[in-house]
Amino acid sequence: MEPDEICWQALIRDVPDFPKPGIVFKDITPMLANGPAFSAVISQMAERVGPDVDAIVGVESRGFIFGAALAFKLGLGLVTVRKPGKLPADIHSVEYELEYGVDRLEIHRDALSRGHKVVIVDDLLATGGTAAATVELVRKLGADVESCLFAIELAFLDGRGALEDVRVESLLSFK
Amino acid sequence: MEPDEICWQALIRDVPDFPKPGIVFKDITPMLANGPAFSAVISQMAERVGPDVDAIVGVESRGFIFGAALAFKLGLGLVTVRKPGKLPADIHSVEYELEYGVDRLEIHRDALSRGHKVVIVDDLLATGGTAAATVELVRKLGADVESCLFAIELAFLDGRGALEDVRVESLLSFK
Repeated sequence: MEPDEICWQALIRDVPDFPKPGIVFKDITPMLANGPAFSAVISQMAERVGPDVDAIVGVESRGFIFGAALAFKLGLGLVTVRKPGKLPADIHSVEYELEYGVDRLEIHRDALSRGHKVVIVDDLLATGGTAAATVELVRKLGADVESCLFAIELAFLDGRGALEDVRVESLLSFK
Repeated sequence: MEPDEICWQALIRDVPDFPKPGIVFKDITPMLANGPAFSAVISQMAERVGPDVDAIVGVESRGFIFGAALAFKLGLGLVTVRKPGKLPADIHSVEYELEYGVDRLEIHRDALSRGHKVVIVDDLLATGGTAAATVELVRKLGADVESCLFAIELAFLDGRGALEDVRVESLLSFK
């Protein structure tokens, strides 16, 4: 079977009441652990990447999984956007809202140059807060966002509404 | 230039006094951000992987970067070992010692089967605490560790001493 014909979607597992009661968590670990399925996802992500992209931006920490494999497949570098206090050199930082309170994401100031074109990669598009913060970090460096690319989209949370001026791509959308 | 001829080692940057005074942090982000360098690292890691390996185990969160790209290159699945509270299904958990206090790592109980052979991947071998805990998690599932594979080794911290019964491979060792 060709990798692209693998039904990797069947390996996304629903886990009820995680991380709290009433939430059904989309667990990607069975898909990641299946070699042909993981290869198919990365190959399908690569097909969504436009021309002349300079780098992949991966968001900590599940975004590192898809971002790194995609960067390797495309022969590109991976720029990491991380949680506070993890990046050792000079950073830009952006706060974004969680359901309760705020969180922060950071990027190295020398991670990208003006005019670089990047694809932002994460496992899941939910409300879009993390992705919107990452777009803001990339733009602080003068770089351009070619697209935001996700394995899974929870369309009912309308994350695209938080990313109005960016091209958004996802492989699997839950309505 | 062939990827393997790239001197990616020159892209590991020393950041003094991070995360605290007196520590010189080995910053891999310039290497990750360089496509040919990152490709070379993953290709060199692949050469260290023995035959008949069933899966790559990546340790959160920088281990996800190397583990995912390596798994993709080899056509294998990626099993994630994560910090507490991130994995949604039934887990095994192991505590390990930090300089002050303890931390914990988790693996899904159904992530591996008895007799599976895995390579544990992380960015850095320091004191070996994280790697030893990951070996313990893999063995709790009845799986076998083919090797522990690191991009960088801080040999002066003798992480190999914590991994005595495991084959340890690293691409770049600081004495």
